[in-house]
Amino acid sequence: MNLERLACLNDALLSAGLDALALNPSPSLVYLTGLHFHLMERPVVALFAAGQQPVIVLPELEMLKVEGLPVRAFPYGENPASWQAVFRRAVESLGLTGKRIGVEPRAMRLLEFGYLRAGAPEADFPDASQVVSRLRVRKDADEVAAMRKAVQIAQSALEATLPSIKVGMSEKEIAAELVIQLLRHGSQSEMPFAPIVSAGPNSANPHASPTDRKLQPGDLLVIDWGAAWEGYISDLTRTFAVGQVEAEYEKIHRIVQEANAAGRAAAKPGARCAEVDLAARAVIERAGYGPYFTHRTGHGIGMEGHEDPYMRADNEQILEPGMAFTVEPGIYLPGRNGVRIEDNVVITESGAECLSDLPRELRVVG
Amino acid sequence: MNLERLACLNDALLSAGLDALALNPSPSLVYLTGLHFHLMERPVVALFAAGQQPVIVLPELEMLKVEGLPVRAFPYGENPASWQAVFRRAVESLGLTGKRIGVEPRAMRLLEFGYLRAGAPEADFPDASQVVSRLRVRKDADEVAAMRKAVQIAQSALEATLPSIKVGMSEKEIAAELVIQLLRHGSQSEMPFAPIVSAGPNSANPHASPTDRKLQPGDLLVIDWGAAWEGYISDLTRTFAVGQVEAEYEKIHRIVQEANAAGRAAAKPGARCAEVDLAARAVIERAGYGPYFTHRTGHGIGMEGHEDPYMRADNEQILEPGMAFTVEPGIYLPGRNGVRIEDNVVITESGAECLSDLPRELRVVG
Repeated sequence: MNLERLACLNDALLSAGLDALALNPSPSLVYLTGLHFHLMERPVVALFAAGQQPVIVLPELEMLKVEGLPVRAFPYGENPASWQAVFRRAVESLGLTGKRIGVEPRAMRLLEFGYLRAGAPEADFPDASQVVSRLRVRKDADEVAAMRKAVQIAQSALEATLPSIKVGMSEKEIAAELVIQLLRHGSQSEMPFAPIVSAGPNSANPHASPTDRKLQPGDLLVIDWGAAWEGYISDLTRTFAVGQVEAEYEKIHRIVQEANAAGRAAAKPGARCAEVDLAARAVIERAGYGPYFTHRTGHGIGMEGHEDPYMRADNEQILEPGMAFTVEPGIYLPGRNGVRIEDNVVITESGAECLSDLPRELRVVG
Repeated sequence: MNLERLACLNDALLSAGLDALALNPSPSLVYLTGLHFHLMERPVVALFAAGQQPVIVLPELEMLKVEGLPVRAFPYGENPASWQAVFRRAVESLGLTGKRIGVEPRAMRLLEFGYLRAGAPEADFPDASQVVSRLRVRKDADEVAAMRKAVQIAQSALEATLPSIKVGMSEKEIAAELVIQLLRHGSQSEMPFAPIVSAGPNSANPHASPTDRKLQPGDLLVIDWGAAWEGYISDLTRTFAVGQVEAEYEKIHRIVQEANAAGRAAAKPGARCAEVDLAARAVIERAGYGPYFTHRTGHGIGMEGHEDPYMRADNEQILEPGMAFTVEPGIYLPGRNGVRIEDNVVITESGAECLSDLPRELRVVG
């Protein structure tokens, strides 16, 4: 339980006109309580009602996790037929019948919501994503320190992996070696995401999964990876040349490198998220590759790989100190090869700190 | 796209009186289509309407994943304001306005459901978990072969980890080494779950997460781990003695070993799930430790760590050939130590095959 954060939540609920917030196992639950639960067939829901002690509905066999915490637990047994009544008692204990209970649609499943709604049939369940996001979006010094460490782990793990990358290795083999190095260098074993290792035509797919395709001379090799440290993550991308590559591939790499620098340079307090996107995008458009930069320039990072703020051309959100996000422009030539270069940035009082400093020029591997 | 499985789904929808099934990124989506998507802030929903080609709503930047597949794609751009209209067009293209569209509450989030419901405001959305589960619950020979391989990887990874386990190592360090060995032995890098490594008093918590607590002489050490192979998983547990342990700990280990054997022996076609649970539970109750076996005896496994069928005392479901599940009785002495022994079993035409054969007696480590 983080009492300071719970106090901020209490204020935020009142300003948002909400009587309570309901969370299932999710990064927001960890942020407020430190409590980790697997998402499984047994529903777990925590209820934060303004001005009251938090309540949690959970399986009996998870009770040890909340022992001694300032939270009122409503445990249930193994038979699902008994669960609904427990949810109802939890809702009634907070006087939430007919009230406004905010939820996070991105995290809550119909499983938890079904029990919650049946427990509070006359309540409203507005989207409270922004209420929680506004608390989480400005990282404090401890959070930034954890992210800095997650970047350092990721960078040293990649450097340790590069010497073993050879022509003939498959994308999956490279990904497995990288994950091993991430663990050796201290990443938490629950990675933020499975690394993307994509080469040749696969590198033209921004969201590729590693395949059995073997590395070939002339490929571009995109590696998009991250580490986790104390619940905070890093999310980086570098693109490599497998031996000599086509002149156009070197060219698009230079353009993306310049776009990445322009995006980072636009990141400062008071700027709009759109400005970061447009700064990176302008470089690529000027070079004539606009149609091949098919995604936004970045997304927030912290406890999750994707969270507020989003660096999109239509996002007028103002950057504030403590906001952390990726800058990751790319150029993808369909059926051919692709490039992406991604860094992690935190807004400071006077500008921005780039947490990542791994070389960005086109390095040769294999 | 697995056309055979889609044909079975079509029949199942008709028998269940459903017009369609809606899936978000989930094991069931992979089962039917082979399509993997990250769960993120961009909603992805596939619609399977009886007798029609499947439809999928997805971000434009994921379009490569569905290229050439027999599925009609409705892509959307980066601006969320445009998404709702795309969902509506997808629903209307299948004539699903006002129809019965089944969903999986355990997988679908309010995020996807919100877009789906707004796209089909007059439709009903019944729980279709059982429709999909009945397809997935009987594993075919290829699925069993993948699970067998996932068990072999897990077993050899544990054997490779055991020699490095020493007094003074932390649970987290042991878990990190085990994950490295899982990858070295060929597990997919997206693990089914983070291993549980819990020793001493922590081993009395069935759902413990690894901590910084260092291994001490006299501890019981519970390791609950698994590997993934071609999308199928294993889920095993063994308990070890760190040097000499209390006589009672040796005793509860013998009881749990006997309970595990009794549970496995009760697994055969035609038996009820409850019988497997009760067979294991009876051994522990007869020995006077009934109150310390605080969870069900097992859960189904396949593409997920927890799925049908569940080995619970109140589950009358009949075991059929191809059903796969864990047998994992335990005894947990609060504040002291705990034991769990878990194997993976598949029902055959004549009995059951135990996929795991790692020694179950109390081995000494450290």
